Amino acid sequence: MADPIITLTTDFGDDSPYVAAMKGVILGINPAARLVDLSHRMPPQDVRHAAYFLANAIPYFPPAVLHVVVVDPGVGTERAVLHVAVGGRRLLAPDNGCWTWLTQGVAQPPTVHRLTQPRYWREPVSATFHGRDIFASVAAHLSLGLPVADVGTPVSSWVVLVREPLVVQPDRVAGVIVFVDHFGNLITNIPGEALPRPGRPGHVTVAGHAVRGCVRTYAEAEPGALVALVSSCGHLEIAVNQGNAARLLGAGVGAEVVVKFTR
Amino acid sequence: MADPIITLTTDFGDDSPYVAAMKGVILGINPAARLVDLSHRMPPQDVRHAAYFLANAIPYFPPAVLHVVVVDPGVGTERAVLHVAVGGRRLLAPDNGCWTWLTQGVAQPPTVHRLTQPRYWREPVSATFHGRDIFASVAAHLSLGLPVADVGTPVSSWVVLVREPLVVQPDRVAGVIVFVDHFGNLITNIPGEALPRPGRPGHVTVAGHAVRGCVRTYAEAEPGALVALVSSCGHLEIAVNQGNAARLLGAGVGAEVVVKFTR
Amino acid sequence: MADPIITLTTDFGDDSPYVAAMKGVILGINPAARLVDLSHRMPPQDVRHAAYFLANAIPYFPPAVLHVVVVDPGVGTERAVLHVAVGGRRLLAPDNGCWTWLTQGVAQPPTVHRLTQPRYWREPVSATFHGRDIFASVAAHLSLGLPVADVGTPVSSWVVLVREPLVVQPDRVAGVIVFVDHFGNLITNIPGEALPRPGRPGHVTVAGHAVRGCVRTYAEAEPGALVALVSSCGHLEIAVNQGNAARLLGAGVGAEVVVKFTR
Repeated sequence: MADPIITLTTDFGDDSPYVAAMKGVILGINPAARLVDLSHRMPPQDVRHAAYFLANAIPYFPPAVLHVVVVDPGVGTERAVLHVAVGGRRLLAPDNGCWTWLTQGVAQPPTVHRLTQPRYWREPVSATFHGRDIFASVAAHLSLGLPVADVGTPVSSWVVLVREPLVVQPDRVAGVIVFVDHFGNLITNIPGEALPRPGRPGHVTVAGHAVRGCVRTYAEAEPGALVALVSSCGHLEIAVNQGNAARLLGAGVGAEVVVKFTR
Repeated sequence: MADPIITLTTDFGDDSPYVAAMKGVILGINPAARLVDLSHRMPPQDVRHAAYFLANAIPYFPPAVLHVVVVDPGVGTERAVLHVAVGGRRLLAPDNGCWTWLTQGVAQPPTVHRLTQPRYWREPVSATFHGRDIFASVAAHLSLGLPVADVGTPVSSWVVLVREPLVVQPDRVAGVIVFVDHFGNLITNIPGEALPRPGRPGHVTVAGHAVRGCVRTYAEAEPGALVALVSSCGHLEIAVNQGNAARLLGAGVGAEVVVKFTR
Repeated sequence: MADPIITLTTDFGDDSPYVAAMKGVILGINPAARLVDLSHRMPPQDVRHAAYFLANAIPYFPPAVLHVVVVDPGVGTERAVLHVAVGGRRLLAPDNGCWTWLTQGVAQPPTVHRLTQPRYWREPVSATFHGRDIFASVAAHLSLGLPVADVGTPVSSWVVLVREPLVVQPDRVAGVIVFVDHFGNLITNIPGEALPRPGRPGHVTVAGHAVRGCVRTYAEAEPGALVALVSSCGHLEIAVNQGNAARLLGAGVGAEVVVKFTR
């Protein structure tokens, strides 16, 4: 059997000794752990961004992997640190809702524990760096095979992050941009099914700008053309072929996107 | 025998859920795969940059490693996805020429397959994210020992990326900057042998600026001095000791560099 | 026994083929080596930054790990490349003092070797890229079990990096900012014990700005409030809850921080 895998997702930055410290703590407890960086560039304290990121990354991993998430504006307060089993995946995350979009489309309710056993934490626990002193330490112990019941207590309520508004009407769907990727592509919360088919009448506007064409993939458009398409995550996406839609439109997360159907 | 290694090179950015999704897909198919990030910061859709990067990175790896490259402006079109064996190295890359500079100095012609077997792809294949649905999935299957012949069909032609212009004359060599590294060092396509030896008459100009000295290593120059030297990849490099030549000269990829020999 | 771990810390940048080349060289010599990136974003040639980073990262790792550090403005000169055993940790680092803060609080003196055996280096050694040709190559050989005595010669003196000034008086402690993290938190060289306790009279000023409150953790302050607290590394830290203290104050490394006690 392959050695256990622990992934790390934080807002600590790629230049941070904090990430390195977490890796050291994990390897100190379980030298066989295989570390996989997901990203350390979540925007600082941006729980919604982390939630989107996790919902679009974690489901692709196999069940045995343990995901450690430290985007944690509430560090050092009474907010809980949770072990979550959801849709066959396992995470350690602060109780700020960052994992709750993983429940979407999952029939079985999540099994959630609050970490309550300080004997698996580093001593003393810093008030500002639970990533090192609680998350990393507990993750390493779990990767050694320790049962969840030994590190925490079941809980039945937790912080849930509400989804962005989406209004569906017969002639119109209104949503918002929920993520801007590295290419400046604007991902919306509008399901791909709402996208007017190429050739089919319809209009997409984003932050007041009309989007001319609807395409299947970037390269179908002229370089520089603003287009709408179905993103790889299944939602309406606004993009510029070989360009940056976010920069072109000056639009970001939260901007309104409307699809109108003409008959 | 050590577990198989798969490296990843993309233009997705370090903040991207797309990289994480690829890692998840790979580990889902081959949990024993060892993932090595080369870089996820190729400039978006910059195939020439990726080509330079690969030519200066891949040859250092041992043959058993499989390199996955996703800098892919043509994603979703009819452009092929290739498996390439070149100089004892193996890559999965889009057919946009990004791997073709690896043939330099290699006597044996590359062996190239086009991926044609959708049974090793994720279903359904997104039109905008072949990195996840084709590259990652096929790479993982190959890392399990699947023969290349099972995933694709041999091809005998492919996109070749032309090299930058280099003019060699008895008293003069003219080339261009082909890469700017993180330190702002300007790497040219002029072979190191063309560099005037320290003490030997000669002039180097870059983007119209005269470079005073020729040195063997950075620290031989005064801090802040602009110098020419032979880079670690064997080419003429323009650098500023403890400084940033690109910023100082306002010069980047494509700027002309001329070496003149006086007698 | 788990396969040997080699960590990498450089100033090469995340976009660099130089990091990839080092990884290739290591895996070419020891295909079983497990590579762990600490960070490739040390500011270029910033030895003090690297020293701080290492002092706050390396101690968390278990002893068996080999740490490779390439922040090396003196590359290609006669500066030595060192193998250092300090406090039960092992590093390869240039002789520029970057590792010397790891001696703090360690009773036993470090054991230091200068790398002197070119038979474990790549041939020819580039004058500008010892990271690839010496550090990576020697690290890989050491990870195969080669004794240090085979790669170098014991030395008894090395470059030591002096610590920043710290003045402790009965009614006042004066220090400086030594690190700015990704969140813009300002970490000082003033021991946490010098921090006025919440409710206890005392004043903290940083770069001329008065810091109002002293807290235990970020979230105890109002969002946007400037506060002093004990950092996770045990030193006085100036932070803004959910904000960026460095940006707010325009203060960075070297700025003066004073704690005054009123009676």
